[in-house]
Amino acid sequence: MTRVALDLLGGDRAPEQVVDGALLSADEQGGVDVGPPELAERLLVERGAPGRLEVVAASQVVAMQEDPSRGVRAKRDATIRVACRLVRDGAADAVVSVGSTGAALAAAVSTLGRLRAMSRPALGLVVPAQAGPLVLLDAGATVEATPELLGQFALVGAAFASVRLGLPRPRVGLLTNGPQPGKGDQLRKDAFAVASALPVDVIGNVEGCDVPVGGRADVVVTDGFTGNVLVKGLEGAAAMLSDVRREALLASPERRAAATPLLPALSAATARLQPDVLGGGMLLGVNGVVVVGHGGSSPRAVAARIGVAVRAARERLVSRLAAALDELAGPRPVAP
Amino acid sequence: MTRVALDLLGGDRAPEQVVDGALLSADEQGGVDVGPPELAERLLVERGAPGRLEVVAASQVVAMQEDPSRGVRAKRDATIRVACRLVRDGAADAVVSVGSTGAALAAAVSTLGRLRAMSRPALGLVVPAQAGPLVLLDAGATVEATPELLGQFALVGAAFASVRLGLPRPRVGLLTNGPQPGKGDQLRKDAFAVASALPVDVIGNVEGCDVPVGGRADVVVTDGFTGNVLVKGLEGAAAMLSDVRREALLASPERRAAATPLLPALSAATARLQPDVLGGGMLLGVNGVVVVGHGGSSPRAVAARIGVAVRAARERLVSRLAAALDELAGPRPVAP
Repeated sequence: MTRVALDLLGGDRAPEQVVDGALLSADEQGGVDVGPPELAERLLVERGAPGRLEVVAASQVVAMQEDPSRGVRAKRDATIRVACRLVRDGAADAVVSVGSTGAALAAAVSTLGRLRAMSRPALGLVVPAQAGPLVLLDAGATVEATPELLGQFALVGAAFASVRLGLPRPRVGLLTNGPQPGKGDQLRKDAFAVASALPVDVIGNVEGCDVPVGGRADVVVTDGFTGNVLVKGLEGAAAMLSDVRREALLASPERRAAATPLLPALSAATARLQPDVLGGGMLLGVNGVVVVGHGGSSPRAVAARIGVAVRAARERLVSRLAAALDELAGPRPVAP
Repeated sequence: MTRVALDLLGGDRAPEQVVDGALLSADEQGGVDVGPPELAERLLVERGAPGRLEVVAASQVVAMQEDPSRGVRAKRDATIRVACRLVRDGAADAVVSVGSTGAALAAAVSTLGRLRAMSRPALGLVVPAQAGPLVLLDAGATVEATPELLGQFALVGAAFASVRLGLPRPRVGLLTNGPQPGKGDQLRKDAFAVASALPVDVIGNVEGCDVPVGGRADVVVTDGFTGNVLVKGLEGAAAMLSDVRREALLASPERRAAATPLLPALSAATARLQPDVLGGGMLLGVNGVVVVGHGGSSPRAVAARIGVAVRAARERLVSRLAAALDELAGPRPVAP
């Protein structure tokens, strides 16, 4: 059974909703959940499930407003650090946290280390775009990017798409403000030159619309600032659409009856861009499966993140990613 | 009658669709359309409307893939330059172009000049967010921003919101990757300090979702790169939704009948984020009404842009914007 180390204290609605999420997925994973055991047990008793989760003790948390690197360094007993240690020591197969993404990044890099060729990890999302799934990265891990870093994201994004989406030669697009060559700020222009020299199939510039619509690129590369703004914008659009569906259902019995044949289509469109789908991803470039999610994650969203982590661990995603990076980046240099 | 100088050669589908757009709105404006007169007349004859538009001669165009500043400088007879000259000389009240935004910016700045306190103009959009309209800027005019420039955008955005949305004290938010203070890249952190020292009501950080959902800020300030990516992402989400609606209508007569009661709600949600609504805006910070739109604008979208320009000219938007900037920025320094 796959063992997921779940950070019980990370998230706006922790620990209650995180515990609820753990209970939702308790059957499909042998959780080694991380947090204060007495607190966890009290919540489990309240939920009529005493002893249902195995809790590894950790008492500190790196808060959202805290400086992530400093917080992780200072708090040896932080849940996210303990969770990463469990993976490093082979006591767990994956980490899931809906707490600070920055803290997860800092703890993962310092405890698990990085994959070859990756100086900073990126948050990779599989977006179920209209024309088919695509990988978007960085969705919010690293807000200050350099051309070289965007080149690394192109490399690891292509490796992730080949493993996860089964594409032999994923098409890589650079997110810019126009489809024409030469569009973008200086960072994009320089990144285009860097990425074009790499052994990946760079198809050129893509635009914001290409992420929800899909079809032009299998991997969309951007910095964590822009990626985060775009993903949250799409989530906001989905929230508007959900309201339309809700209104259609609740307005009157007649409207509800009229809406019924349309619900599958409306639900499918909404589902594509919902926070439960988009609001999480995997840290690509760290030597371990680390799945993060929105601070505001519902129990269902927490359970979905756990599902992503279980699948990645079972697929041996990280070692396949490392192998794909080796293949893309060429043979390792021999020590002199 | 308000006279709009329409750039007949700018846009992916120019001049045909631009001429069609001009014809759609010919009744509400005394157009002084700018382009090659013989070409325009031939298109008008084909459309059964000979002599319907008054065309001012201009034969060159700055293409989308051209360097905008260089193109505008080199082409004295470019439609966008001639259109701006007409406004400068009092022969037209506003410019509309669906050609290169960069070319419109360069021509407007060099021909019409800038408003006080604005070193670079921003593209301002009124987004019909779910909770009410808000101003988003920069939606794509200036891709390289500085903290000082984002401060100017906060100032002119607040002035625009007070004039256009009738708000005495618009709430200004800075678009970042998280709501917590201190979030964002170095540019945002520095811009927050700059904007907070200005006489505008800075409420703090807002996120991508706050643009379609609305309610938190009346003015959302960002650089032209991020703004363009976000707006195009929202348009892509709207395109997905339109497809759902179309599918609902076309699937079968039964489905069409079932969908009918829902169409107003679906249309309203789609309409909010459609390219015809979002895909255009006004250059804020130039001394004249200059409205730009997507290169791919349909005739209906061109007509909508003309409507925006007519309204702005009739409202004397630019002089009111200048007055609001004066009020916000304090009395002009007296020459020594």
